[in-house]
Amino acid sequence: MNKNMNGKFIVLEGLEGAGKTTARQAVVEQLNALGITDLLFTREPGGTPLAEKLRNLIKYETEEPVTDKAELLMLYAARIQLVENVIKPALAQGKWVIGDRHDLSSQAYQGGGRQIDSHLLETLKKTVLGDFEPDFTLYLDLSPAIGLARARGRGELDRIEQQNLAFFDRTRTRYLELVKDNPKAVIINAEQSIERVTADIKTAVKNWVNSISL
Amino acid sequence: MNKNMNGKFIVLEGLEGAGKTTARQAVVEQLNALGITDLLFTREPGGTPLAEKLRNLIKYETEEPVTDKAELLMLYAARIQLVENVIKPALAQGKWVIGDRHDLSSQAYQGGGRQIDSHLLETLKKTVLGDFEPDFTLYLDLSPAIGLARARGRGELDRIEQQNLAFFDRTRTRYLELVKDNPKAVIINAEQSIERVTADIKTAVKNWVNSISL
Repeated sequence: MNKNMNGKFIVLEGLEGAGKTTARQAVVEQLNALGITDLLFTREPGGTPLAEKLRNLIKYETEEPVTDKAELLMLYAARIQLVENVIKPALAQGKWVIGDRHDLSSQAYQGGGRQIDSHLLETLKKTVLGDFEPDFTLYLDLSPAIGLARARGRGELDRIEQQNLAFFDRTRTRYLELVKDNPKAVIINAEQSIERVTADIKTAVKNWVNSISL
Repeated sequence: MNKNMNGKFIVLEGLEGAGKTTARQAVVEQLNALGITDLLFTREPGGTPLAEKLRNLIKYETEEPVTDKAELLMLYAARIQLVENVIKPALAQGKWVIGDRHDLSSQAYQGGGRQIDSHLLETLKKTVLGDFEPDFTLYLDLSPAIGLARARGRGELDRIEQQNLAFFDRTRTRYLELVKDNPKAVIINAEQSIERVTADIKTAVKNWVNSISL
């Protein structure tokens, strides 16, 4: 994957309230400790001028009901803009890119949560992204009830965060299905204390960087 | 197709400058003459609050290069919003919907013009739109050189209209391929005088309405 790319693409995934911001800090500290300091941060949906406009439509459109399929298509439109115009050029320059969400979010939220046609999701992944994929994914796992309580504590929920618990249960189940046999992903228990989560993330990043440096 | 729908969906297709606005007037006059007066007009991309915002991104985004795939995905996001939130409800109420462009435009412009992966286009059509399709399509055929000269005469060209002649040649070729064996479509020679084009459209609409009223 990502041939001729000198940088690496690390992605943080998980439900609302899983602690992706704290996790990112842990990844940065561990990478810096390993001497890797040329970093770029992305978030999805978003991260380019057009993708941020799409993010706004995806998360806050209120003038009309947004169909599940339109949501999915806008997510992929934003994603391909970010991949082509930001991530690939950064990787080619040797930067390490740390992404707050990527394709796995669509597989879990839209595929699992919204139960969108799997053939559509599969075709989008294959034909829009081609063989581009993260080099390493950290999935922060926690029960939806805990995550949503945390997210609510932060303030107003967006259109997707307002889904019911069953939606997030399906999303978590799909996340776990997709991550558990993926050699390029690890599951982090995000129900632990911040200190334990941070330590687990640092260990996972260190082990992975060592494994690819062999 | 479009079972349990009392209204009909008629679509006008063609290159820039083909005369879709004049053609619409001819369709309206003929339908009115046949006693069909409960009409709704749509345009694509657009026609709903979200779809109009997407139209603006598709046609006028200038802050960054828009990838062909993002353009295609935004077009389908706008289309499914229009179909689900406007066209299907109108047809169910017995309205006749006259569309300025629909799916055939994506097949011709993005498939032919931009030469996007046919598997992606086919999957989008099938899984996003399902079996929804126009009841009747009028394709206004003319050479790209003539159409573009007309469109330029109207003022500034948008992002898609700024493509080169080869792009529009491929688009026209794809239009003709898709329309020629389609029993629900007719080809109108749009290089003729306005009077002849209008007369041809009225005849085509009249013949088609009579055929479905049998």
